[in-house]
Amino acid sequence: MSRTFASQAEHRAFVAQQARMPQGFRAGSTRFAFTPAEVDKPANMNVTVLAADQPCADFAAVFTRNAVAGAPVLLGRQRLNEPQLGAIVINNKISNVGVDTGMADAEAVCAAVGAGLGLPGSAVMSASTGVIGWRLPKAAIVAAVPKAIESLTSASLFPAAEAIMTTDLYPKARTARVGEGCITGIAKGAGMIEPNMATMLGFVLTDLAVPREALRAMLPRVVDQSFNAISIDSDTSTSDMVVVLSSGKVPCPDLGQFEAALMHVCQNLAHDVVRNGEGVHHVMRVTVKGVANTAWAKAIGKSVVNSPLVKAAICGNDPNVGRLLCAIGKVAGGAGFDLKTSDLNVFMGGHPLFSRGAFTLSRELETTLQAYLQHAQMYESRASDDGIFRPPLAFPPHERCVDIEVNWGQAGAQEVSIFGADLSHEYVSENADYRS
Amino acid sequence: MSRTFASQAEHRAFVAQQARMPQGFRAGSTRFAFTPAEVDKPANMNVTVLAADQPCADFAAVFTRNAVAGAPVLLGRQRLNEPQLGAIVINNKISNVGVDTGMADAEAVCAAVGAGLGLPGSAVMSASTGVIGWRLPKAAIVAAVPKAIESLTSASLFPAAEAIMTTDLYPKARTARVGEGCITGIAKGAGMIEPNMATMLGFVLTDLAVPREALRAMLPRVVDQSFNAISIDSDTSTSDMVVVLSSGKVPCPDLGQFEAALMHVCQNLAHDVVRNGEGVHHVMRVTVKGVANTAWAKAIGKSVVNSPLVKAAICGNDPNVGRLLCAIGKVAGGAGFDLKTSDLNVFMGGHPLFSRGAFTLSRELETTLQAYLQHAQMYESRASDDGIFRPPLAFPPHERCVDIEVNWGQAGAQEVSIFGADLSHEYVSENADYRS
Repeated sequence: MSRTFASQAEHRAFVAQQARMPQGFRAGSTRFAFTPAEVDKPANMNVTVLAADQPCADFAAVFTRNAVAGAPVLLGRQRLNEPQLGAIVINNKISNVGVDTGMADAEAVCAAVGAGLGLPGSAVMSASTGVIGWRLPKAAIVAAVPKAIESLTSASLFPAAEAIMTTDLYPKARTARVGEGCITGIAKGAGMIEPNMATMLGFVLTDLAVPREALRAMLPRVVDQSFNAISIDSDTSTSDMVVVLSSGKVPCPDLGQFEAALMHVCQNLAHDVVRNGEGVHHVMRVTVKGVANTAWAKAIGKSVVNSPLVKAAICGNDPNVGRLLCAIGKVAGGAGFDLKTSDLNVFMGGHPLFSRGAFTLSRELETTLQAYLQHAQMYESRASDDGIFRPPLAFPPHERCVDIEVNWGQAGAQEVSIFGADLSHEYVSENADYRS
Repeated sequence: MSRTFASQAEHRAFVAQQARMPQGFRAGSTRFAFTPAEVDKPANMNVTVLAADQPCADFAAVFTRNAVAGAPVLLGRQRLNEPQLGAIVINNKISNVGVDTGMADAEAVCAAVGAGLGLPGSAVMSASTGVIGWRLPKAAIVAAVPKAIESLTSASLFPAAEAIMTTDLYPKARTARVGEGCITGIAKGAGMIEPNMATMLGFVLTDLAVPREALRAMLPRVVDQSFNAISIDSDTSTSDMVVVLSSGKVPCPDLGQFEAALMHVCQNLAHDVVRNGEGVHHVMRVTVKGVANTAWAKAIGKSVVNSPLVKAAICGNDPNVGRLLCAIGKVAGGAGFDLKTSDLNVFMGGHPLFSRGAFTLSRELETTLQAYLQHAQMYESRASDDGIFRPPLAFPPHERCVDIEVNWGQAGAQEVSIFGADLSHEYVSENADYRS
């Protein structure tokens, strides 16, 4: 987490290099204008197709646990029973959630993509992201599909990573090599992010041959330690999904090595999603050690990264350690964890600030921690003339984070890391000052 | 909830009228300057004493469930075993949490108050609110106690309601009559509010004679439906407490009538706390009906009022119903509640917007809901010249709220109401732009 970027061009070059297309796949996108049925305001939509040269028997997916799941999620769960998957079609702008014609609309889009590729509609998975409650412009999407298919190319996943964005500031792609093959993922997501099975949308393609059963066994393990270990605003989306598709073009030397590489790709993508979260100035990494019950450790980490007061303090470069302890104690006491405050140790940036039941504060520590927070900041808030706060950057200037360690000193505990973000005027502007 | 206030003077007159002192009690406060050990910046502190004319055998209290509880909470739990309580001493500015000398400091303050009133220190309860992690200025408080005791008066609880404030914009007091007696409560709290046993600080005095056992049985029931049914920012304080003290000067005609009046006082105080929450523009009331499992109903209500995206949308007068459904589905799905989306109905301001699995949106409904949200707004955001957002009001202009009803249609369900607030630039300014 120590890479830096001096310019948007430098960051885009990095993402382009990460967006390597695995063998056996192509991607294409198209953009069109339409007017939603629900508001009298024209909008633009991108339709993106990820296509396999031959339908793949080896694929896996995990989906949101939100009870109000979108039609693409409901349809995607059905697709897991299909013998083969040949393509994924993705639209932004409208998420196709809670609409009576949602399933039929999603099936129609899949059928159009299938028709263009010589596949049955049931071999196509769909994914949608954007406004909840609006109807998909089905006819316009179906009309656009042939153009997306015409544009299919095996050159790079970079255009697809850009086309699936909504409020994201920049595209996200990560790759890893295993033997002669590679695993490449792209993701979108910037708000409504506390994934509970997957981030908003993540698509991973690989040319390495991994059987369906093996893929499906490892994906939940990987997601648990990547997309399920982040939170921007604690709001689990209705549309979260992560899909992995293997073309099988390259023999896989070792399944353990593959899983480690998949973990690497997914963790980096998940961290990219946090760093590009709505209004994020600081990324927080909360590492919980010495808590033997792993579920408790996760809950403690989530409580810290989701505390509005901790988030706001970090945004202001304020080492408000009291709020940190409040967030830890809130979940430990509220959920009745059997943990004694007298065994608790807390560190920020490696500096001890709470040791066995009492704070270890001093004016010097305060100054040190302020400088530490400043160093981890990506930009400062400044309102535009119209009173709106907009992020001044379209790339991450660095990959530093605010490291918080919570250690309860119990033996035999697994270490848990949760990634989160601060709470800023830019987040409020993004979600309150604009009408969606 | 339909009272309006045209000016600060009108609101203060209302609070003063509510701050009626029950027979057998006096209150006094004093203010002094000091420099905290932890930062090189002078500060002011108020010390407030609530004193009974004779020590009371009948008292009850509930405390925070935060595992990192402050010294006054730990001491207060011990005081419940004392035969009598004669006074409560309250300071603002520093909460006396997580400090190695915390218990000794709190005991010293209690002893000083006891000495001034002719009581043992063990008959005095202490309460502290403010910065977590700082040391109480014990010597300065002990020196100030005699002045607070000199100022004791039975005239009104209004000065005490003002003296216990921290970031509160205005004092909060509520009263109710039962027979010839009365119950009067004061409360403070504006941030770090998702009480879990009690709000930050609430003190209720009554002249009605209610035995200790009866008081202690009813207080948790009352708190459950008042202070425990609100959330401003989901952060349960380390210092929450509610204390009830009876002087027994007036016979109580009926315990049921007393409990109903106590409920009235506590609910109104809890709503006052939400309305005066940090940066609050809109108060939200989420009523969950038709969910037979009451714990699920509460969790659904809390999920809505704590969703940053719902909160930000309401701040912007944006009827973003998709976020509302996301927040409902997040907890229902994440916690595995056995509830079908196809049975779900959601209303805002009485207008149906989601009915049996699908949205019922239209451009007309959008316009209606925007106007409804605007009507429930207390003020508009405007940054000062220094870029800081400060609430432009020191009183609540009205007591309207945004009414959200979630109805799952199950028979035999208890109705649950949860109060919450929106998320604004003023909240971020309060908690990020100032250094604490």
